[in-house]
Amino acid sequence: MKSILIKGGQLITASDTFFADVLITGEKIALIGTDLPADHAEILDARGKLIMPGGIDPHTHFDLPMFDTVSSDDHYTGHKAAAFGGTTTVIDFVPQEVGSLKSSVDLWHAKADNKAAIDFGFHMNLSHFNDQIAAEIPLLLDEGISSLKVFTAYNNRLRLQDGEIFQVLRIAREHGMLTLLHAENGDVIEILISEALAAGHTSPEWHAYTRPAWGAVEASLRAASLAAQADAPIYIVHMNTAGEVDFLQYMRQKGVPVMGETCPPYLFFTVDHLRRPDGAKWICSPPMRGVEDNQRLWEGLKNSTIQVVGTDHCPFFFDGSTPIVYEGQPVAIPGKELGKDDFTKIPNGLPGVGDRLPILWTYGVRANRITPNQFIALTSTNPAKIFGLYPRKGALLPGSDADIVIWDPDRKLTYGLAHAQHRTDYNLFEGWELVGYPDKIFLRGELIVDQGVWHGHAGMGKFLRRSTKSFVI
Amino acid sequence: MKSILIKGGQLITASDTFFADVLITGEKIALIGTDLPADHAEILDARGKLIMPGGIDPHTHFDLPMFDTVSSDDHYTGHKAAAFGGTTTVIDFVPQEVGSLKSSVDLWHAKADNKAAIDFGFHMNLSHFNDQIAAEIPLLLDEGISSLKVFTAYNNRLRLQDGEIFQVLRIAREHGMLTLLHAENGDVIEILISEALAAGHTSPEWHAYTRPAWGAVEASLRAASLAAQADAPIYIVHMNTAGEVDFLQYMRQKGVPVMGETCPPYLFFTVDHLRRPDGAKWICSPPMRGVEDNQRLWEGLKNSTIQVVGTDHCPFFFDGSTPIVYEGQPVAIPGKELGKDDFTKIPNGLPGVGDRLPILWTYGVRANRITPNQFIALTSTNPAKIFGLYPRKGALLPGSDADIVIWDPDRKLTYGLAHAQHRTDYNLFEGWELVGYPDKIFLRGELIVDQGVWHGHAGMGKFLRRSTKSFVI
Amino acid sequence: MKSILIKGGQLITASDTFFADVLITGEKIALIGTDLPADHAEILDARGKLIMPGGIDPHTHFDLPMFDTVSSDDHYTGHKAAAFGGTTTVIDFVPQEVGSLKSSVDLWHAKADNKAAIDFGFHMNLSHFNDQIAAEIPLLLDEGISSLKVFTAYNNRLRLQDGEIFQVLRIAREHGMLTLLHAENGDVIEILISEALAAGHTSPEWHAYTRPAWGAVEASLRAASLAAQADAPIYIVHMNTAGEVDFLQYMRQKGVPVMGETCPPYLFFTVDHLRRPDGAKWICSPPMRGVEDNQRLWEGLKNSTIQVVGTDHCPFFFDGSTPIVYEGQPVAIPGKELGKDDFTKIPNGLPGVGDRLPILWTYGVRANRITPNQFIALTSTNPAKIFGLYPRKGALLPGSDADIVIWDPDRKLTYGLAHAQHRTDYNLFEGWELVGYPDKIFLRGELIVDQGVWHGHAGMGKFLRRSTKSFVI
Amino acid sequence: MKSILIKGGQLITASDTFFADVLITGEKIALIGTDLPADHAEILDARGKLIMPGGIDPHTHFDLPMFDTVSSDDHYTGHKAAAFGGTTTVIDFVPQEVGSLKSSVDLWHAKADNKAAIDFGFHMNLSHFNDQIAAEIPLLLDEGISSLKVFTAYNNRLRLQDGEIFQVLRIAREHGMLTLLHAENGDVIEILISEALAAGHTSPEWHAYTRPAWGAVEASLRAASLAAQADAPIYIVHMNTAGEVDFLQYMRQKGVPVMGETCPPYLFFTVDHLRRPDGAKWICSPPMRGVEDNQRLWEGLKNSTIQVVGTDHCPFFFDGSTPIVYEGQPVAIPGKELGKDDFTKIPNGLPGVGDRLPILWTYGVRANRITPNQFIALTSTNPAKIFGLYPRKGALLPGSDADIVIWDPDRKLTYGLAHAQHRTDYNLFEGWELVGYPDKIFLRGELIVDQGVWHGHAGMGKFLRRSTKSFVI
Repeated sequence: MKSILIKGGQLITASDTFFADVLITGEKIALIGTDLPADHAEILDARGKLIMPGGIDPHTHFDLPMFDTVSSDDHYTGHKAAAFGGTTTVIDFVPQEVGSLKSSVDLWHAKADNKAAIDFGFHMNLSHFNDQIAAEIPLLLDEGISSLKVFTAYNNRLRLQDGEIFQVLRIAREHGMLTLLHAENGDVIEILISEALAAGHTSPEWHAYTRPAWGAVEASLRAASLAAQADAPIYIVHMNTAGEVDFLQYMRQKGVPVMGETCPPYLFFTVDHLRRPDGAKWICSPPMRGVEDNQRLWEGLKNSTIQVVGTDHCPFFFDGSTPIVYEGQPVAIPGKELGKDDFTKIPNGLPGVGDRLPILWTYGVRANRITPNQFIALTSTNPAKIFGLYPRKGALLPGSDADIVIWDPDRKLTYGLAHAQHRTDYNLFEGWELVGYPDKIFLRGELIVDQGVWHGHAGMGKFLRRSTKSFVI
Repeated sequence: MKSILIKGGQLITASDTFFADVLITGEKIALIGTDLPADHAEILDARGKLIMPGGIDPHTHFDLPMFDTVSSDDHYTGHKAAAFGGTTTVIDFVPQEVGSLKSSVDLWHAKADNKAAIDFGFHMNLSHFNDQIAAEIPLLLDEGISSLKVFTAYNNRLRLQDGEIFQVLRIAREHGMLTLLHAENGDVIEILISEALAAGHTSPEWHAYTRPAWGAVEASLRAASLAAQADAPIYIVHMNTAGEVDFLQYMRQKGVPVMGETCPPYLFFTVDHLRRPDGAKWICSPPMRGVEDNQRLWEGLKNSTIQVVGTDHCPFFFDGSTPIVYEGQPVAIPGKELGKDDFTKIPNGLPGVGDRLPILWTYGVRANRITPNQFIALTSTNPAKIFGLYPRKGALLPGSDADIVIWDPDRKLTYGLAHAQHRTDYNLFEGWELVGYPDKIFLRGELIVDQGVWHGHAGMGKFLRRSTKSFVI
Repeated sequence: MKSILIKGGQLITASDTFFADVLITGEKIALIGTDLPADHAEILDARGKLIMPGGIDPHTHFDLPMFDTVSSDDHYTGHKAAAFGGTTTVIDFVPQEVGSLKSSVDLWHAKADNKAAIDFGFHMNLSHFNDQIAAEIPLLLDEGISSLKVFTAYNNRLRLQDGEIFQVLRIAREHGMLTLLHAENGDVIEILISEALAAGHTSPEWHAYTRPAWGAVEASLRAASLAAQADAPIYIVHMNTAGEVDFLQYMRQKGVPVMGETCPPYLFFTVDHLRRPDGAKWICSPPMRGVEDNQRLWEGLKNSTIQVVGTDHCPFFFDGSTPIVYEGQPVAIPGKELGKDDFTKIPNGLPGVGDRLPILWTYGVRANRITPNQFIALTSTNPAKIFGLYPRKGALLPGSDADIVIWDPDRKLTYGLAHAQHRTDYNLFEGWELVGYPDKIFLRGELIVDQGVWHGHAGMGKFLRRSTKSFVI
Repeated sequence: MKSILIKGGQLITASDTFFADVLITGEKIALIGTDLPADHAEILDARGKLIMPGGIDPHTHFDLPMFDTVSSDDHYTGHKAAAFGGTTTVIDFVPQEVGSLKSSVDLWHAKADNKAAIDFGFHMNLSHFNDQIAAEIPLLLDEGISSLKVFTAYNNRLRLQDGEIFQVLRIAREHGMLTLLHAENGDVIEILISEALAAGHTSPEWHAYTRPAWGAVEASLRAASLAAQADAPIYIVHMNTAGEVDFLQYMRQKGVPVMGETCPPYLFFTVDHLRRPDGAKWICSPPMRGVEDNQRLWEGLKNSTIQVVGTDHCPFFFDGSTPIVYEGQPVAIPGKELGKDDFTKIPNGLPGVGDRLPILWTYGVRANRITPNQFIALTSTNPAKIFGLYPRKGALLPGSDADIVIWDPDRKLTYGLAHAQHRTDYNLFEGWELVGYPDKIFLRGELIVDQGVWHGHAGMGKFLRRSTKSFVI
């Protein structure tokens, strides 16, 4: 079995920062120690580098049909982009189709398995609910799926009623599963959208105006209250408002098992970006909010009110009408231009799976907003614990998968489309200066990215059967 | 025109406490001054007494059909009981029947007008909603009705969907009307009730267990969020949990025009009372909560987070199977016994319209929880302002209706069924010691209660056409 | 006895807004009523006008020696300026001199009594403390003084130690007196000032940098904690930071009898003003803070966390070296120029006694930050109640002193030095547009200001012997 | 060099829980890995056991003179008791004597070095301050002391003035040192004590009545405010009130670098215990508070508002007049009986260094108040990081000292004096049922406690020269 000895690096975990050598044997971390002997191992000199567990992004949407198009990264291009950014595990959402839950899962496997280039798991969306579905939910555990996602928005498409969410929470609790929730008020949004369109408001910023922040705030609290009543944990995805942070803190202080995730764009951008001529680039749901929301979300990360930074990666081309060349191939997938005359037709979603770690390192850790240990906790260890992957993933521990990032803390670069590997034609962080960047990425002991060169391949990513042994943190 | 000169009393208003004489001419207060000359007025010596504006109870349900019975006070017995307790104005809720809103209002007038013994107004319940009803809402102003009530609970009976509530709020805003909201989560309640019954839980405390506090909390915040999004004021009725106070304070601090009401039972009783053998006596919705809720509600009154103390008066007999003699007549109306084998069949509601002022005086003012001025604000001036009755009602001002309470601050008594005039067979405050009690009550210049003797009569109460000139306070 | 009948105006009190006539007989309000007959009274047509109780400013410093000069308004010019701005009562602070407290009071009477043009009271500063002084404190009640002021700043000049403040609070409590407190941390300020001067920092903004906000915040909480431990009420003067509002709210919610005052400059100006070339104009202690402090103080006013808006009026000339002509006389009193080379020598204090009501009306009431009733409460009724003047002052009640402002809500003007009557050469609100301004001012029934013309005179103001019957609100 | 291989245990760190083998080589942890080969190592079978880093108690007072006695554990008996309870590092406080700081340190070394049985460091008390001392503070770093302690209480004995504390904070900041603070209001306490004694109140509960909670609350905020103004970190020792938790949370949210410690007694006991006949057993400063304080402190631990659980170990005999036999020797040190007629003469302090981990495990971790990882963070990793011992101590990392606790999670026992090894005659947790207890304790690779048998010896403990590389967490 092949061995690699990473020598002289500084390890960073969710709580520790220390110098040690790491011995990888096969797919696993075998040893962590001082001055480990080389024996037969290949030596990797990591002096001056940081050693981190591979990032885990629990919120991606690859190859997702939306409106008259599809998200522009599939399970191969998206995985590859993730890897370049230091992420070695993703959890993607399976849309609920007509038929059994298993048939929906099978469909997603058919899309993903042959393309997967990093390890991956699935969450199951629940967008309609009845006794039959209720009975099928526990069977998802047999599929290795231990988390469910529900929506309080997207009436007649994705939304469940409060009572249905309550029932899902209780089934989840009974079987040790975790419920994720998209928090907005679908009713209000439907009304505001109709009115906006009727009034001839078609430009991107109306996407934000028709999805008010208070709707996100109350839906978060509503969800957490349903969880409290069901005595079940809940996880609020893509938190985006100051009010959500206030309430998450309140509820957690009251002992309610509610956890939260935010995504980088909500930490940096505001509704002002939607008012730009290229505002469609920032269109996703929930929308960008205000500066005070950015700031309160940072506070939430700093004081551990929010547990995870994911991405909600769901990229589209800004201009999908003109093919671009991606890896030598012309690619033309309709994109944001679909909604140029109607904001409701702009595909919702942003690229980000690869941006997450580099952006958060420079503008979070180096900016003294979070510590290096919090960086690891938020992007790797916590999602591993919450989603039943720990300690196999999210940790630099003997026995853990050797998903390892060798991070160069001194690397400086001007970030953007040229570095990000997302299959799209724009990057939200174009031109941002970075200090610190991934140097090498190992997936289960294999070097898949080495100083910007891709050594991975489609199909090498494994589907992760997740356990119900998750943590509420 | 008849004149009465009230001499030597100490006036208490929402902000002032002072000695002055009050001259009533006809139905109105004409003068407030020092050492007013008697001229031709009848003199009422009020030395040692307090002079207050008549109480306003904005939350009553007289003669309300429920399950297989009806609330046991009609518009005469209820008005009379109110008067004995110092309340000279009530606002009752008109159930929405099939047909036009006006026809529902007419029906309620038919029940009330001939019986009314004090002045009264109507709120309009909205328990179903469509374009036709939307169009009729503004016409209620022609009926003198400027407030609407909606529910987030009672699925398939009273509940509106969030989007409907949002539309009601916007119509209300456009026409200067105010929306009241009953905050509980109907979906969860339905589920918990079915399960409780299926499990054979039939006793009264299950009424509370199936209506969890978190549901009230989130529904209050949801309502206030809808109001924020509609830019419309909202009024949360019968606040009952600590969490609601927390959120009301939060929302008001954020500038949201949300106001709140609580009722005496929520200040004093807990779910423990429902566990008593006669627990059905305390059954109403929302249910009694815990000691920490009592305490936080008091804080909410003290620091003006909550603006009104109403009653939600909706009495039933504890034992309606045996007729009682009321004013010389045998009365037998089915009551709480209807649910002796099934808590869901217990008529929901409590007596209280007459208890409010005496109980709140001794256990609020004298207990130093609120000041005398706050007592007036909470029970008279604030509801007058909020509901478009001010300064005709709720004030001791020249030009105001001469609805006046002469309060004896030294009167001691052991309160209970013997004093309360509600038409029912029990009183929640039976045996409580009081210091301070109404001595004389004037309605528009007429002495209707004099030291426990009733001088009023059915039909003397006037319907109050309320204006849209209300205040958000 | 002379009678004046004010007809047709709209009265505004701390809780009520209503149309009525007001009859003044001699020095008192005799009657409030509708359509009052003229009889022998002089009629004042107040249609279209607002009738308010005269303002009460509980925080002035007239003729106060400071550094090598004296505050530029004496008890005549200051009273007159107050009157022009609608204020008919002031409470001035008596510095504690060597000798008995009574001798300090006598000294202040000697300065004030013959000059007084409006009614006035005194607070007693306590800037040194021992058993003798402790024994003299209750005797102040014989002097008509029921309030004491202590300082946590100004080491070796005004500051008392915590234990001394605690003792003062307990003496105050025993005798029904109220303690006022200036909250800053004297120790830190002394150190920072020495260092700033040593480093050659002499410009005005260093006044702010050497008096950090956290010092004010902790000193406020410290004071309130001492009050809690002494079970005595306390009143924090000139609140100026967001943190103070946070803590006042916290403490009040916990039941601690703490009250607070802010002053207009803290609502509008920031440390940026001190950085201007004429920054010395804004020098007072505590200093101006930031925009978020302005905003949080407004919230504190709106939600009744703060009870009073006073002025801390203590004016100096910006350029006292060149005499100005004031009422035909040349006046030259050294001013802010004393500190042109050393910020610690800039006399501390701002003009404001006349600005308070007009500025707060336009930029508070008309800007929808506070209601008209809150305006009256904050500037008149609350200080009357808190400082033992109620209901003689601060109220439009029969029996109250006829201190009445006839306010023209439609009057528009560009405010500044030309309108303000302060004896100084600048106005902080120069050029601000106002809508609404005092039209006529009555002091105990005498018209002292009539559309900008002064009819008062020195000596007509009466010293107010204040009672211990104060309110904690 | 001797090697020990701990096989099959479950490791618990501040963030991780995982199965691995640990190889100790000499004094250090050498390797952490799966299925480590024995080679020449001695094997320790740890299946079914938990492996934890040794506890670090940053708050002890051994051999401390107080009143007319001395704390009854010296640096040997105290260290030994610590070890039995799973603690392998303590940091003791050096009293500031007359003379140089170094001479005080030398004195403490003379007491400690030959007795030390576990590793230890020193904090330096600063109880008087002047320029000379200011100059000596940085020299403490040469002594291996990087933390300073100051007091806002104990006037004329230990207290520094605010300005002195501010200066200490700034010196500390300049040199990378950390300031610890005892938060109470000395002034108020002095006054209340004199009065209580004058009134003949001599019993133990008066110790609590004369040290009000609000004094602790404000002093904590004051300290944190001074730290904010000095831009220096601060660490509040022995937090004991709900209000302190509220403010710590507030300040940390505002970005102030303030940290906090509580001690087990404050989590479990209340002032009611002081009212018992043996109330003196609970006498320490600050005193026990109320149930709501216990609860809020737990919340503070759970949500990471509080970072450390220390002990403030400072034991006295309850009855020191009768010698007890300790390790075969009669021991008679005057104790709590000194104050039987005067609560101010009761030596202040509680035993606890050995109780901390076992009590917190059963009543914290097993009671679901904190997680196992939080247990490690609070009692070992966080104090190591905060006090400059990390990663040498407080971590299970290669290169760390092999201070290891083998914890038996299934061990049940009834705790009390029979188990605790403190040299005193009572235990606060007498009779408490425990599940989970230390089985073996290693200090730098040496087994010093093995199933209740002591293998350590005086002098084996090393003085820890602490670095300034501490963390604000």
